[in-house]
Amino acid sequence: MTDIVQPSTLPGFMELLPEDQRVFNRMKDIIRKNYEEKGFLPIDTPVLEKQEVLLAKGGGETEKQIYAFKKGNTDLAMRFDLTVPLARYVAQHYSDLSFPFRRYHIGKVYRGERAQKGRFREFYQCDIDIIGNGKLSLFNDGEIPSIIESTFMDLGFSDFTIHINNRKILNGFYRSLGIDDSTEVLRIVDKLDKIGLEAVKEELQALGLSDASVSAIADFIAIDGTTQEVFEALRALPVEEAEFSEGVAELEAVFDIAYALGVKKEHIKPDMKIARGLDYYTGTVYETILDKYPSIGSVCSGGRYDNLAAHYTKQSLPGVGISIGLSRLYYQLNEAGLLDDFTDSALDVLILPFEETKRESLALLKTLRDAGICAGYYGESGKMGKKFKYADQLRVPYCIVVGLSEIESGAVTLRDMENGKEERLSPDALVEYLRDKKRD
Amino acid sequence: MTDIVQPSTLPGFMELLPEDQRVFNRMKDIIRKNYEEKGFLPIDTPVLEKQEVLLAKGGGETEKQIYAFKKGNTDLAMRFDLTVPLARYVAQHYSDLSFPFRRYHIGKVYRGERAQKGRFREFYQCDIDIIGNGKLSLFNDGEIPSIIESTFMDLGFSDFTIHINNRKILNGFYRSLGIDDSTEVLRIVDKLDKIGLEAVKEELQALGLSDASVSAIADFIAIDGTTQEVFEALRALPVEEAEFSEGVAELEAVFDIAYALGVKKEHIKPDMKIARGLDYYTGTVYETILDKYPSIGSVCSGGRYDNLAAHYTKQSLPGVGISIGLSRLYYQLNEAGLLDDFTDSALDVLILPFEETKRESLALLKTLRDAGICAGYYGESGKMGKKFKYADQLRVPYCIVVGLSEIESGAVTLRDMENGKEERLSPDALVEYLRDKKRD
Repeated sequence: MTDIVQPSTLPGFMELLPEDQRVFNRMKDIIRKNYEEKGFLPIDTPVLEKQEVLLAKGGGETEKQIYAFKKGNTDLAMRFDLTVPLARYVAQHYSDLSFPFRRYHIGKVYRGERAQKGRFREFYQCDIDIIGNGKLSLFNDGEIPSIIESTFMDLGFSDFTIHINNRKILNGFYRSLGIDDSTEVLRIVDKLDKIGLEAVKEELQALGLSDASVSAIADFIAIDGTTQEVFEALRALPVEEAEFSEGVAELEAVFDIAYALGVKKEHIKPDMKIARGLDYYTGTVYETILDKYPSIGSVCSGGRYDNLAAHYTKQSLPGVGISIGLSRLYYQLNEAGLLDDFTDSALDVLILPFEETKRESLALLKTLRDAGICAGYYGESGKMGKKFKYADQLRVPYCIVVGLSEIESGAVTLRDMENGKEERLSPDALVEYLRDKKRD
Repeated sequence: MTDIVQPSTLPGFMELLPEDQRVFNRMKDIIRKNYEEKGFLPIDTPVLEKQEVLLAKGGGETEKQIYAFKKGNTDLAMRFDLTVPLARYVAQHYSDLSFPFRRYHIGKVYRGERAQKGRFREFYQCDIDIIGNGKLSLFNDGEIPSIIESTFMDLGFSDFTIHINNRKILNGFYRSLGIDDSTEVLRIVDKLDKIGLEAVKEELQALGLSDASVSAIADFIAIDGTTQEVFEALRALPVEEAEFSEGVAELEAVFDIAYALGVKKEHIKPDMKIARGLDYYTGTVYETILDKYPSIGSVCSGGRYDNLAAHYTKQSLPGVGISIGLSRLYYQLNEAGLLDDFTDSALDVLILPFEETKRESLALLKTLRDAGICAGYYGESGKMGKKFKYADQLRVPYCIVVGLSEIESGAVTLRDMENGKEERLSPDALVEYLRDKKRD
């Protein structure tokens, strides 16, 4: 007698039933298609890397969360994002790549975070980045919103807003108030939606900022209106910093390019409140909000950085990129009931043979498959009721019953599983009928 | 100054350049498409599992190769195949699945093997299995060759042979010679291609088998000819074991079903020499050989087993399945130069704008993308020669030059990158032309 081990997965690791996995995969396919249609090249790096490579940057929260271990004499770690592997990849294969290097990467990453609802320790990231050799034009920053737009439209969303800002605007603005390190200010401003303007102002005052500075910040983050109005308001600000003007010019250029590529006005918005992280981004930054589900937070974020791979090469490699956290996005959309319509059947039709009609049923299976129809075959013995139940469980839209009387008449019975209607069709008519349905 | 860490991957971990990754992904897509068209459902289990779960079976070579470690108080391990996770999955989700459960799984697995050419420590497996609840009809064993056939045809192969046997034939035959445990005999027979018949006979004699037994084995594994001839030869053998007859009947049924599903005669072959592993399979077994490259070994193998998940549940779950080791297959085909024709461009066309024609070039990019053409845009500054070089490196088939004179004339220049020919086309004619090329 074999000892039974309780079959279970680790806490915080997502695992889906097949019908949900089909929905998940469809979302993944849509993202990939959009990335490929824009000419991004795939890479697929190892999940396991040398610890010294993955942790070259070192320090921070990440190091505590990482799955790291020793095998033999080698210190190993599982990747915790796709950006560090990209940096290593570009540095390592530098001479074999063509720049600007446009790559997409869809893969699993690992973080041993404290387990909580909607947070996973293994999750998919879907990233694109464009890496320049020494320099990289703003065209790429302007193209990104068009990629986000087409991807989320294809995912079935029409109401979303890509909030765009530029770190140079923030650096210049806050420096004009005498704030050289804006880290703390940005952290507080980031809480605006959660805690409200008054609480933000109180926290800024608690930092020791003057009333005038707090008031200037409040006005700055309140800048709103059409894109044109926002840029007019920014230009009207009494900020002398060159970096500020540079940031405003860059942000305007990004909007110009995005509009030229057909991005809809309602899908992009300059937003002085967003900053994305604290030390990585140096120019354009993006956050994407589903208008009807703001509580989900940003579903696609990223930005421009000066130097991708400083830890692995002396080459200067500026880039711009975005990431979709697919596992979390799937989880949240599913919780919100937004994926219910996505569920479908893997099969176009299921053949239910009788013992006496096996040969004819197999021939029909071959005919349908040759015709490009995704046909299944219930090869197990059992009563017809059990076979129909199986078809129902798989949500198969049609079943074909091949009985002796059907064979004698040269036709088979096609049953519409939704309404129970049956009709008799010749094999040719059947192929035609199912092909039409497939095209619908 | 940042310290530079040498960018490198771990030995034994495959990492491809983007153009090779596209070829690899195309192969993966073809396999997935074939699995999905036959109605298999996707699953995607965690790469990391509880050690006690993954090692429930215990023992053997596997345990030494596994990547196992502790995080906090939990013993973890990375999966080393997709079969153990399938067993755990089916046992865990038993009540939510419909049987026969047809699943495909394409994912990475991990084995810390001794590094050697063409062996990888991280590699893709592409598996299908059909799991029955208590029993599973032979239809499934007979369907498998049709899936292997369509997959390898789509991968571009026409000359391959699926060698099929049945473990019951082997058990019955060897028991009839008084060999109750045929493990050692099968291990020796498996070396036939490598060491030749005489050496096999010598090794069998060294096991202590009688001359008569050795001679009977030599005759048995030499059985060859058409499928019909093989079955006639098998039936003519003086073997009384019931298991032997059962195996022969099963094997014949498998061939009947495969033929009924249209599998070509030259693609399947009964072969008394193959056994696939030593304790797992209990019925049909498959090995697939590329006729022109036998040294690659089996590129797709599998078989029938009595009980998938004995370590996780008391339910009896018989199944049949196959696996393609994609990383190894890719590596070997690439080494043999068989993938050179697969390399292609991610882009249909690349737009090369001048500084003064940016606006018109962006408009053209939008037009082409809206028309479903995979168009790129070289947004960096630089001389035209550098831009064409980039297009060449990416193997882009066409470039569009948008100069001032082009804009004045209302047409753009399309350059065929293969022969350098250029022609002037209006945007409408351009869309038409590139769409036609895409369809080719």
